[in-house]
Amino acid sequence: MTGSVTIVGLGPGDAAKVTPEVTAAIDRATDIVGYIPYVARIAPRDGLTLHASDNRVELDRATHALEMAAAGRQVVVVSSGDPGVFAMASAVFEALEARPDFLHLPVSVLPGITAMLAAAAAAGAPLGHDFCAINLSDNLKPFALVERRLRLAAQADFAMAFYNPRSSSRPHQFARVLEILREECEPGRLIIFARAVSTPDQQLRCVTLSDATDDMADMRTVVLVGNSATRRIGPHVYTPRSA
Amino acid sequence: MTGSVTIVGLGPGDAAKVTPEVTAAIDRATDIVGYIPYVARIAPRDGLTLHASDNRVELDRATHALEMAAAGRQVVVVSSGDPGVFAMASAVFEALEARPDFLHLPVSVLPGITAMLAAAAAAGAPLGHDFCAINLSDNLKPFALVERRLRLAAQADFAMAFYNPRSSSRPHQFARVLEILREECEPGRLIIFARAVSTPDQQLRCVTLSDATDDMADMRTVVLVGNSATRRIGPHVYTPRSA
Repeated sequence: MTGSVTIVGLGPGDAAKVTPEVTAAIDRATDIVGYIPYVARIAPRDGLTLHASDNRVELDRATHALEMAAAGRQVVVVSSGDPGVFAMASAVFEALEARPDFLHLPVSVLPGITAMLAAAAAAGAPLGHDFCAINLSDNLKPFALVERRLRLAAQADFAMAFYNPRSSSRPHQFARVLEILREECEPGRLIIFARAVSTPDQQLRCVTLSDATDDMADMRTVVLVGNSATRRIGPHVYTPRSA
Repeated sequence: MTGSVTIVGLGPGDAAKVTPEVTAAIDRATDIVGYIPYVARIAPRDGLTLHASDNRVELDRATHALEMAAAGRQVVVVSSGDPGVFAMASAVFEALEARPDFLHLPVSVLPGITAMLAAAAAAGAPLGHDFCAINLSDNLKPFALVERRLRLAAQADFAMAFYNPRSSSRPHQFARVLEILREECEPGRLIIFARAVSTPDQQLRCVTLSDATDDMADMRTVVLVGNSATRRIGPHVYTPRSA
């Protein structure tokens, strides 16, 4: 049997947000590859091998998935959220670019509910008009590029979603992000800190830019910044369609 | 029984991309409200009333949903894709802002697979790094704002997704969008025209900016523009994690 690699999105945490096509792909798999906490979401069964690996070894993990597929296995690579948004899909294609001998393998991507859209839904509709998504981590790109994108996004009056806002290895950069936003945006700009969305640990907090502090974000937080028209109405935060 | 409004995303078309929580909300509904082709995706059953309405009456539709909820109905407002991305969620909150007497009603949003992420998955991972989403329609905002956001997004080297790129009522604006991209980006920039993604009519076409023409987009198309590092490898298009 010909092997394959299917890169799937498990959504933000809640099983009710996993699409049926992703569930079906997992049911057909012989091997699951992914970061430890995401592989932990897959129920063990006979005939299924779970390959959990640590963070920051995405390329090794992707190459391993391709190697197993070349050996005839039905490999599913799991990401949280959507695999095409700051997750494993790009890593698999990077690995494939380095190993053109694997280009004959069927490689497909199944989308999932990405964290920013789950967080936006939980808050109302803060990404209801033009918006951007920025990965604040500088593991793989210079922080100067993050700064440049932030300023231009603010000048374009995009609503914004930030992934990986803060980690223990770079505790100070998110404070710098807030500084840049304060230079570019008005003090009343709304910011939502959405932690562990759709899990039992979910926390949602909406503050103005002037009240935001960097310790409101951690590794499990996605941060949403409204555009200049984003407003609160009762418990909801939304961006009008005309802005 | 207290009424409610639940705004749900049906995903881009394929039933296997509808999340279980959205299916469950539809199963509990007494009334479904939405644009004709989206309501047509809901199976009729006893006890369920379908309220299909035409395009461009989003606020009326949203107010009708709130009124029925106030009368004790379990109303589900359906959008294609994700309701928080250029869809019904913001319209419902706009209607709610105009009718604060309805603020006591439970209003919730359930995310769905939005067109750009389904299109990106079908193509590979073109939105695999920082990106933005822009609604090209000027029904509700001046086209000058679209132009400004386009230029700043290109200068920020975001990958981009365009919703509503072209319609019969504004056939010429997408040609102008391509002109602006040609002023800001290199001729080899990759552009994906993704039509009717995940339906039997799906068409995916990847061309360079120099080969793109405005008639490649229509109302059912979402357009993805790579950033300066986006590349093809075999049949896949992806953006590296480092760009």
